[in-house]
Amino acid sequence: MTIPSFVEIMEFVGTFAFAISGIRLASAKRFDWFGAYVVGVVTAIGGGTIRDLLLDVTPFWMTNSMYLLCSGLALFWVILFGKYLIHLNNTFFIFDTIGLALFVVVGVEKTLALDYPIWVAVVMATLTGSAGGVMRDIFINEEPLFFRKEIYAMACVIGALVYCMCDRLGMEVHMTQIMCGAAVFVVRTLAVKYNICLPVLTGGDEEESKK
Amino acid sequence: MTIPSFVEIMEFVGTFAFAISGIRLASAKRFDWFGAYVVGVVTAIGGGTIRDLLLDVTPFWMTNSMYLLCSGLALFWVILFGKYLIHLNNTFFIFDTIGLALFVVVGVEKTLALDYPIWVAVVMATLTGSAGGVMRDIFINEEPLFFRKEIYAMACVIGALVYCMCDRLGMEVHMTQIMCGAAVFVVRTLAVKYNICLPVLTGGDEEESKK
Amino acid sequence: MTIPSFVEIMEFVGTFAFAISGIRLASAKRFDWFGAYVVGVVTAIGGGTIRDLLLDVTPFWMTNSMYLLCSGLALFWVILFGKYLIHLNNTFFIFDTIGLALFVVVGVEKTLALDYPIWVAVVMATLTGSAGGVMRDIFINEEPLFFRKEIYAMACVIGALVYCMCDRLGMEVHMTQIMCGAAVFVVRTLAVKYNICLPVLTGGDEEESKK
Repeated sequence: MTIPSFVEIMEFVGTFAFAISGIRLASAKRFDWFGAYVVGVVTAIGGGTIRDLLLDVTPFWMTNSMYLLCSGLALFWVILFGKYLIHLNNTFFIFDTIGLALFVVVGVEKTLALDYPIWVAVVMATLTGSAGGVMRDIFINEEPLFFRKEIYAMACVIGALVYCMCDRLGMEVHMTQIMCGAAVFVVRTLAVKYNICLPVLTGGDEEESKK
Repeated sequence: MTIPSFVEIMEFVGTFAFAISGIRLASAKRFDWFGAYVVGVVTAIGGGTIRDLLLDVTPFWMTNSMYLLCSGLALFWVILFGKYLIHLNNTFFIFDTIGLALFVVVGVEKTLALDYPIWVAVVMATLTGSAGGVMRDIFINEEPLFFRKEIYAMACVIGALVYCMCDRLGMEVHMTQIMCGAAVFVVRTLAVKYNICLPVLTGGDEEESKK
Repeated sequence: MTIPSFVEIMEFVGTFAFAISGIRLASAKRFDWFGAYVVGVVTAIGGGTIRDLLLDVTPFWMTNSMYLLCSGLALFWVILFGKYLIHLNNTFFIFDTIGLALFVVVGVEKTLALDYPIWVAVVMATLTGSAGGVMRDIFINEEPLFFRKEIYAMACVIGALVYCMCDRLGMEVHMTQIMCGAAVFVVRTLAVKYNICLPVLTGGDEEESKK
């Protein structure tokens, strides 16, 4: 038994928060415990799994049981304290954003370590942060939230760009991670607070239906 | 032309039964022949394909045309005898469960052969047995049945645990396979017969909507 | 800066046309710009990505930024000229079919180059041409069009078979590519013009619901 590092604690917090978000949506659809657990796991590890498949490395959760255990803890948390969770929405927003920031850092670092160019790192960071949520929405048969009100994607893109910029400027690695994580945190918090969103795409088939 | 082994015959039966289950659901949605075939193939080989991608081995159906041919036979079967199939529901339940038992055995063995720990083998066995059905439900745009009334998942988990336990106790490999397959068969049959299911998850967002 | 080859120009045209088809459907659902871009990218590169994962090679778009840039151009095109696009449906049909023909050629060649048998090449060609569209429909939470009115799949299968036949007959490689592409083009154009489609599958569960 070793003392977990700072990054490991952050990963635990992020996985827990992502799993909770999946399990809560599953409970609203009246899934059973096992179904809710699967939705939680997919939300937490789905993005990283797709990233690792594309990068052709062993999916991260297959070498460390922590991620599946952590999702199991999230399930028991919802079973035991489900009805009190709604008072904690702000707390979960912070956990969720910490998780997102960390997922972006991990996604960029893994990709750059394999000598891919910066734009691949940006794509992988965005996939790591948001593909789990898209898979969650497909599993519960809802139109992915992601496509209408992206709260994750822009923060991932900007965070990844900040990482690559700091890296190019020769900044020390821990400082680069903190800058990247902070960028994700700030962009997402501002976007939610001031309800910033990208313009809706009009034209194309929509025009057709008006006629 | 060689005489097929016992395991090959079981694989054929399992693939056929899984493909039939996909094709019948597709016919209820009035898909055309090709669409129905694709749904059948995905139901039969989808779980094993995801397993092989995660384990980074060549997907099993790409080295043996038997699986796609077998799904094609299932399609012709439904085209020719579709209206008689409903009298055979019990027969198909048995075939389907045989297929499930075999998929679990194959999933565990492939994973342990690559030196992954037991819990990865349990996950892979469950994926092999149930991911095809989840993909089928996503393709026909239904909420995956899996998440509400898991008839497959628990049987996969318990079967995989039985395999690993027998393996640890030093049991002979064929005996271990039979014990594992029997566990899947018994758990699933009992679950369906006595309508055993896991509790529904309540709390979280559901509480929110009550207010 | 080098002058792009003929195949590169065709790839650009095909990617652009596939991305446009995704972006237009996303705009009809009122997705925001980022969401529409993601749907466009997935439509354009989704099929090839699944093919490359199954073949265990690096996904094609990770080694050349052209594909993501081209999808970005498609997004700006729809933003700027969305309302004029409906007058160009015939033009897009031609582009789309050129793209499809090229995707089939690339899918067959990549698979045969890895020493897989012909039937795997046929599957990979069909996946390259049509899996992107299926992913698009899953993302916008529609039942995949593919399964009801396959305009892509049969053309892919026949084109791939023509390629393999010409290849076996010892035909020169450029001639083989042209024959394959032409087969895709002709089959799809005839299928759309004369409204040719495969029979709908009846029987199975449908009979059940009649009772």
